Amino acid sequence: MRILGVDPGLNRTGYGVIETDRPEMIRLLEAGVIRTSPEDGISRRVSDIYTHLSDVIEEFRPNVLVLEKLYSHYKHPTTSILMGHARGVVCLAAGMGGVRLESYAATRIKKAVTGNGRAGKHQVQRMVKSMLGLNKAPEPFDVSDALAIAVSYVYIEGVKGEKVKRLKG
Amino acid sequence: MRILGVDPGLNRTGYGVIETDRPEMIRLLEAGVIRTSPEDGISRRVSDIYTHLSDVIEEFRPNVLVLEKLYSHYKHPTTSILMGHARGVVCLAAGMGGVRLESYAATRIKKAVTGNGRAGKHQVQRMVKSMLGLNKAPEPFDVSDALAIAVSYVYIEGVKGEKVKRLKG
Repeated sequence: MRILGVDPGLNRTGYGVIETDRPEMIRLLEAGVIRTSPEDGISRRVSDIYTHLSDVIEEFRPNVLVLEKLYSHYKHPTTSILMGHARGVVCLAAGMGGVRLESYAATRIKKAVTGNGRAGKHQVQRMVKSMLGLNKAPEPFDVSDALAIAVSYVYIEGVKGEKVKRLKG
Repeated sequence: MRILGVDPGLNRTGYGVIETDRPEMIRLLEAGVIRTSPEDGISRRVSDIYTHLSDVIEEFRPNVLVLEKLYSHYKHPTTSILMGHARGVVCLAAGMGGVRLESYAATRIKKAVTGNGRAGKHQVQRMVKSMLGLNKAPEPFDVSDALAIAVSYVYIEGVKGEKVKRLKG
């Protein structure tokens, strides 16, 4: 099955597509960052995110799109609303593309990937590198976080309906 | 010219289309509320808002879509993020539909419509009824607010490039 993990943000939206039929064998298909410029208007920025992500969905036809559950990391409410703009069009891309949406709390994702629900971004990045058998750690954090979100699905839900044990890191 | 005012919310998104060539003569073309159910998943809900609003844009071809400027009325950040989801797909509908986006602070909109930047929703509703020559006040508030947003454009920007005086209420 194919899993698309997304870490939405108005400035940078990270995404990663993985393919797996068992947790020992998770393959990276594509990952990247959709960057938008604050100089562009908001409608242009959300259009860029939506269009790019819709292209990824069309190309890779993931079985599920995974996000972090709604949670505000931000103290300033306007920042939360702006992140919401990006997350809204990501959810829309799933809906319009006929892709099922799943979301987990950030702590659950970190725990599934590293064994520690409070793991830092570097630790998550190292585990993602190891789990996907990459030569180089995925960068920036928007990408490693998106891949961690995708990988967590395999460990939380299992593949072929079976829950799987976490690999030792 | 045609102006589409939108008051985005995940539960209820109000919208209103007006047509005018001078401020004494503003005509209501269409107004309504897009309601979504919390029982539906988020991707279905934003898809409903996006699809409905895109249909309105396609049918009426407004020259501009007007929103309130980003501002959080909510104490709880999650509520702000959810409102951001709705606002994000509204901005996307403008972008994908090739409609220019404009936004004003809520106080500026209220001042343009009622003369008082701190006017209550009932007062805004009454002024919208009067300005559009309606027999009945537009309801619910999501609709009267959306129409106030549209009407404010006429008074803030003028039509045919000329600023206009506010009508006496």
